[in-house]
Amino acid sequence: MKRIRIILEYEGTSYVGWQIQPNGVSIQQMLTDAIFGVTGERVNVIGSGRTDSGVHARAQVAHFDTQARMPADKFAVALNTHLPPDIRVLYSAEAPPDFHACFSAKQKQYRYTVQLGPHARVQTRNTALHLHTVPSFDLLQAAAAACVGTHDFRAFMATGSKPMEDTRRTIFSSEWSQVGGGSKPPPYWRYDVAGSGFLYNMVRILVGTMLEIGSGKLPPEAMTRALTGGARDLAGPTAPAHGLTLWRVCYPDFDTEDYLA
Amino acid sequence: MKRIRIILEYEGTSYVGWQIQPNGVSIQQMLTDAIFGVTGERVNVIGSGRTDSGVHARAQVAHFDTQARMPADKFAVALNTHLPPDIRVLYSAEAPPDFHACFSAKQKQYRYTVQLGPHARVQTRNTALHLHTVPSFDLLQAAAAACVGTHDFRAFMATGSKPMEDTRRTIFSSEWSQVGGGSKPPPYWRYDVAGSGFLYNMVRILVGTMLEIGSGKLPPEAMTRALTGGARDLAGPTAPAHGLTLWRVCYPDFDTEDYLA
Repeated sequence: MKRIRIILEYEGTSYVGWQIQPNGVSIQQMLTDAIFGVTGERVNVIGSGRTDSGVHARAQVAHFDTQARMPADKFAVALNTHLPPDIRVLYSAEAPPDFHACFSAKQKQYRYTVQLGPHARVQTRNTALHLHTVPSFDLLQAAAAACVGTHDFRAFMATGSKPMEDTRRTIFSSEWSQVGGGSKPPPYWRYDVAGSGFLYNMVRILVGTMLEIGSGKLPPEAMTRALTGGARDLAGPTAPAHGLTLWRVCYPDFDTEDYLA
Repeated sequence: MKRIRIILEYEGTSYVGWQIQPNGVSIQQMLTDAIFGVTGERVNVIGSGRTDSGVHARAQVAHFDTQARMPADKFAVALNTHLPPDIRVLYSAEAPPDFHACFSAKQKQYRYTVQLGPHARVQTRNTALHLHTVPSFDLLQAAAAACVGTHDFRAFMATGSKPMEDTRRTIFSSEWSQVGGGSKPPPYWRYDVAGSGFLYNMVRILVGTMLEIGSGKLPPEAMTRALTGGARDLAGPTAPAHGLTLWRVCYPDFDTEDYLA
């Protein structure tokens, strides 16, 4: 028996999300089926965390145990022959037996992409939120900066989530940047956030709140008020799933960034 | 009556190509229907040229005549409300009455994208040809350079094309470039070719020939031999459609590059 860890990328558009669900096809299901195709074993594939329906991954990490004799580094190519083109395993290797894709994770990074301009562009129609009107970049940036540090993020958790004992999380970095084109404003703005962990829908509610602040629908102090007040209705709406991508996962002995070009 | 010219982008994956055909949905059909939705008129939409099934456009140009009173520059947004997300009109304006999207075109540019590496990446699965093995960049580049100038390209025309009187075309530039990543080799290689016009399947056969030369299946002199010999079987195979994108169209009074970010 050995433990395999993999890095995979996917476009979440066609899936109900990471987790196996009765009402549609999940990434976890596709992976489980692909592993069965390769090894003949029905295994439990554990991800670093769930991604919602429509959310993408540039670097999701998962692990599973197998008795197959195939060398660990051959799993990536082998699994890809059983996966559709919108899911790719980019890396596979043997992991220490106590490695756990979810519980061992020390840091995660997400990126949320916004596309500005009069028309929703074809190339990023599934991976960026199109905005007709340009928010204030400075207001977005100030609201993002207010999230850095250790806070109780309960206002940024989906209503209906099961109650959690500890809704405190630490955000290491939280920043907007502008990219692309010679046009003004640059057509793509990205929000990158790295933290110790994230509550359910937390990144999307952070983005929804920042976009309301950036467009003047909420005052600049709304972010701090929601962080200190702790009530869901102090924060903004949940931004659409399709702009969000799981960007990077770090473990004590393993950082996805070291394995991606 | 006024003549409208538009710039549109599309991902060709889901379409039978530009031209209206009985056996599937075409870009031209979608545009014709969208114009009907906006103006109530059934018009003939003329493109700068046909793109094959699976071929994409970053900047296709088309024109049509309308009696609608809507200002010409409002057509882009109006048409987009009637188009699916994989087709976008990026620009619309009134054109001189003698402008013709096909016959007035003076120069066209195509880009063919190749993705290298062990796994076909998710993001470019529909827009780049994945190659497992790395061709010789120098051999590709030398073969590309051999195409520049005025040649009889009949060896690079699909067999079964209707006979043409003049198969001479002028290639202004023909060049490979490497982009992306800090990895070696860079994961994306692009072939950019600009010419006075192109025969049916010409760019794809040029690429197919260069890739055979780059991988040693054809000798370096195969390109010149096909250009001088003129027989289809002197050239290589037709490269897959999905790596090809119509990149730019130039007219005496109009260059798509001036309108794209």
